[in-house]
Amino acid sequence: MNDQNAPVSAVRWTDAGLCLLDQRRLPEEESYLQFDDAGAVAAAIRDMVVRGAPAIGITAAYGVVLAARRHVMESPQEWQTGVLQDIQVLAAARPTAVNLVWALQRMQRCLATAGDRPAAALLEEARRIHAGDIAANRRMGEAGAALISKGSAVLTHCNAGALATGGYGTALGVIRSAWVAGKIRQVYAGETRPWLQGARLTAWELQRDGIPVTLISDSAASLLMQQERVQWVIVGADRVAANGDVINKIGTYQLAVACRYHGVRMMVVAPLSTLDREMPNGQQVTLEERSPDEVLQLAGRRIAAPGATAWNPVFDVTPAGLVDYLVTEAGVVAAPDGEKLAALPVSQSDPQ
Amino acid sequence: MNDQNAPVSAVRWTDAGLCLLDQRRLPEEESYLQFDDAGAVAAAIRDMVVRGAPAIGITAAYGVVLAARRHVMESPQEWQTGVLQDIQVLAAARPTAVNLVWALQRMQRCLATAGDRPAAALLEEARRIHAGDIAANRRMGEAGAALISKGSAVLTHCNAGALATGGYGTALGVIRSAWVAGKIRQVYAGETRPWLQGARLTAWELQRDGIPVTLISDSAASLLMQQERVQWVIVGADRVAANGDVINKIGTYQLAVACRYHGVRMMVVAPLSTLDREMPNGQQVTLEERSPDEVLQLAGRRIAAPGATAWNPVFDVTPAGLVDYLVTEAGVVAAPDGEKLAALPVSQSDPQ
Repeated sequence: MNDQNAPVSAVRWTDAGLCLLDQRRLPEEESYLQFDDAGAVAAAIRDMVVRGAPAIGITAAYGVVLAARRHVMESPQEWQTGVLQDIQVLAAARPTAVNLVWALQRMQRCLATAGDRPAAALLEEARRIHAGDIAANRRMGEAGAALISKGSAVLTHCNAGALATGGYGTALGVIRSAWVAGKIRQVYAGETRPWLQGARLTAWELQRDGIPVTLISDSAASLLMQQERVQWVIVGADRVAANGDVINKIGTYQLAVACRYHGVRMMVVAPLSTLDREMPNGQQVTLEERSPDEVLQLAGRRIAAPGATAWNPVFDVTPAGLVDYLVTEAGVVAAPDGEKLAALPVSQSDPQ
Repeated sequence: MNDQNAPVSAVRWTDAGLCLLDQRRLPEEESYLQFDDAGAVAAAIRDMVVRGAPAIGITAAYGVVLAARRHVMESPQEWQTGVLQDIQVLAAARPTAVNLVWALQRMQRCLATAGDRPAAALLEEARRIHAGDIAANRRMGEAGAALISKGSAVLTHCNAGALATGGYGTALGVIRSAWVAGKIRQVYAGETRPWLQGARLTAWELQRDGIPVTLISDSAASLLMQQERVQWVIVGADRVAANGDVINKIGTYQLAVACRYHGVRMMVVAPLSTLDREMPNGQQVTLEERSPDEVLQLAGRRIAAPGATAWNPVFDVTPAGLVDYLVTEAGVVAAPDGEKLAALPVSQSDPQ
């Protein structure tokens, strides 16, 4: 680990407002954008300045603080309508991560009891959500690392790291904790087309902490397993349905199928705020499809032949039956199913 | 189909010598390079000016013609040593495609009986190899298309098209024939990281023939299958072992695993010249690993975080048990195994 710093923080609150690391510019440039307006925060979520389910939730919570500040100042009597409208805009920014809705519901409950000068109470609540996420990551890191035997090699997909959360990370939190415990021999990361979160973000974040990482084309994962070069696939989640189905970055399902075929273990690491108890199973989710240009272009340059089109679903659904372990801050659930998930506590997300 | 032209020809013999379409520059630019030297032809194979197992074999055959012309002219008494040396250089250009060795063995047999002025006989033999490959593609196209039901959607991987062969294509030959027969509803192509043969070459070649193609990230193939959007995966091969194991572009094995899981049928289309009767099974093959830069960079620009490394195997091995149909110019082999492959005729590769 980098001694000078904790893992990078993608979302920060400062006296000037909300500060987001612009993840679109990584790894070339570590630049931060400042926000004092909830609409701009929603746009930043939509445009992937910030991404990762827990990080989106935390960002939206701070967005509500900005909304309250602005509307109370502009309209001291009628501010509530404006704030509620902004909450709707924030909720609609991206469809898949349930943490977004979860965080906004917490903020809305806080708003209901916050009185006429809500900004301070809302900021306190947003900070609690943020600190709670980091604490949950740390607990998941320890719990997940305990499953891993010394000398293991692991493959991760997309970025479920400090950049995707309040800090530390879900899947990368487990990898960090297992690395510190001396258990991990090698970390592989799928490059994660089309947005290259693996090549751009996971590699950047792990290198920064002094954890070496070897990238592979997403297509090479099964060969890695066939050659017994890897014992674990460890990923995060954007939403976990009540029956344990996992909605996560496109390619997760393909990895889960390959894991089952090869007897490689599949670990999903997600805080309780990612669990959607209202959704019976993953087939109910509307999977976000983004612009075909993300496939037809790479790093802003067209790579595909003229005239070709693309289908660009950015998430997929992994049936619970393909998940060996679900790790939450409440502990490890082996072979997750509806019954075991129903027994989990409701997300507290408060630091202990 | 484009009425003006047959499918594009990646390898052509002209009065000036060998002419290769520079596939590294597609789809931006359709530019051709001229060769009159076997060493330069070997370098072109190594550097992927031309790629695809059958196209590499044909190119090498023409390379032997160039070697003979040059050495006979430069050293009328001692030319044979020089030609045999050039054959060794051509054989070593890339390790995986057995068609390269197969074509060079044919040329060497021809050389042995060609007398003191071998160039004409060698050119005739190289043309026979070339024409035989096109004829084999046409026969495979018909045989493979006969397996496909009307209204099917197919997924292909890498480029096993006219660009990868003497013309028409193996996997894309089947897709062309099935398209003409009105059986295909939709063609999907995996973009095929890291070299993007799907996005750059397959899309270019099919668009040129008026066959619409939808690209996907390689990671999205299993979701395509889960949503029952595709009934077939159709690929070529760089080598088929005696037991039916298929060595092909990285990602083929992952697709085969996903096909079996979803009940999607897997068709491998390869001429008899791709069958390596000397190799008992695919685990014997040395899989080519290319520079990590192919994963870390795109078009000369670094896309991965500084400090990250990559593992870049460019082929993988699909066990015969995962292949539903092997299509050769001798017909269709369902559930290929050693016994069925041993019963296949030796490659004639002569046009009828």
